[in-house]
Amino acid sequence: MEFAVILVEPKYGGNIGAIARSMMNFDFHSLVIVSPSCSLESDECRERAMHAQSILDDARIVKSFDDAIEDMDYLVGTSAISSENEKRHLRKSLSLKDFARKIYELEGKIGIAFGREDIGLLNEEIAKCDLLVKIPTSEEYQSLNLSHAAALVLYGLFSSKVKDVEQRPAGKIEKENLYRYIDDLLDIIKYPEYKKENTKIMIKRLLGRAMLGKWEYHTLMGVIKGAVKAAKRAKAKEK
Amino acid sequence: MEFAVILVEPKYGGNIGAIARSMMNFDFHSLVIVSPSCSLESDECRERAMHAQSILDDARIVKSFDDAIEDMDYLVGTSAISSENEKRHLRKSLSLKDFARKIYELEGKIGIAFGREDIGLLNEEIAKCDLLVKIPTSEEYQSLNLSHAAALVLYGLFSSKVKDVEQRPAGKIEKENLYRYIDDLLDIIKYPEYKKENTKIMIKRLLGRAMLGKWEYHTLMGVIKGAVKAAKRAKAKEK
Repeated sequence: MEFAVILVEPKYGGNIGAIARSMMNFDFHSLVIVSPSCSLESDECRERAMHAQSILDDARIVKSFDDAIEDMDYLVGTSAISSENEKRHLRKSLSLKDFARKIYELEGKIGIAFGREDIGLLNEEIAKCDLLVKIPTSEEYQSLNLSHAAALVLYGLFSSKVKDVEQRPAGKIEKENLYRYIDDLLDIIKYPEYKKENTKIMIKRLLGRAMLGKWEYHTLMGVIKGAVKAAKRAKAKEK
Repeated sequence: MEFAVILVEPKYGGNIGAIARSMMNFDFHSLVIVSPSCSLESDECRERAMHAQSILDDARIVKSFDDAIEDMDYLVGTSAISSENEKRHLRKSLSLKDFARKIYELEGKIGIAFGREDIGLLNEEIAKCDLLVKIPTSEEYQSLNLSHAAALVLYGLFSSKVKDVEQRPAGKIEKENLYRYIDDLLDIIKYPEYKKENTKIMIKRLLGRAMLGKWEYHTLMGVIKGAVKAAKRAKAKEK
């Protein structure tokens, strides 16, 4: 499976550069551009691409939409505007979330087409797409910046593939240990007995919600142990 | 619950304008800017904001990070770089996805801080945040364009709140109707008996995966009905 980003008649070199950068950020490398109104060698384009110069160097410039999509096995159009009317099949779309979930079932070369800054993809171009993806926006202002639209779609694809690196969660024994020290602490500070149970549950829920990692546990444990010890020392001196 | 976008010492008016536009796209309206190096009245800023001029007009410019966060009940920092080291609590972060899921449990005014174009948020600023959010990126190139980072976070928040508008799915009776016509069609075109069952299942699976809406069903039904009728007419003439 292989992706290509297809830009259709982009006007501004800055957008092309910014999209190249986004592609690098989210592990996409193949860029096809249909009749750009600007040079890929312009300062704005090159500067906005930052460390993604290689993507611009390797970009394929073609004359027509048909040239761009020729070797794609599956073609995806993008739009921020979707049809309200269920009868109009042309602009029926999948949400970005559903698309990002489903796309990895496909094989072959998948082209993702982004339209012009002002009018997006033409109906005749959308008709050639196997699928139209809609980026949900506020009803009040649907028109997205081109490079933002690309960043959102590429991020959506990237993040649905990559599992978050999770921290190792604290285990059962560690948590019980921690709760025991919290008990000790409540005892030593003479916390009112009638409030104790409720407070212990509150702390448990709070730490549960925070999904404590192993190292967070060790740090917190150190603090509470320290507090218990200090309080005990203070008590010993009082005697 | 109320959100404010906080930009810390942004350098380029274009980024501020692009972020204002994104805010409008995703229903955020309150913008606070700490010591920008550029004017909000610059052409680049105003042009990139497009129809989000009101957000720039209402933006609050402050001198220091502390001024910006003063009236926030909860402060969220953002970063594309997260700590590999589980012991370093400062840069421990939540993924954008988990953040967007959890944030709506909070109340009050929530500030979301984005750092400088080049070096992001300083450690002393991150230390003041209640939570750090990480946007997952390729290991190869983690540094995101500032306005892209903002667009991703704001889209993440917006899309976790808004349920996709789903088309009304075709009902059981409609689907059974459709399958009956498909049976008729296979009969009339003398489809080989031994392949029939398997092909019917394939079509059922295919339509199932496509999650047919009511109107799509009607359109498809029209086509198949038409095909059955035409084939029947042809057959009648043959006799």
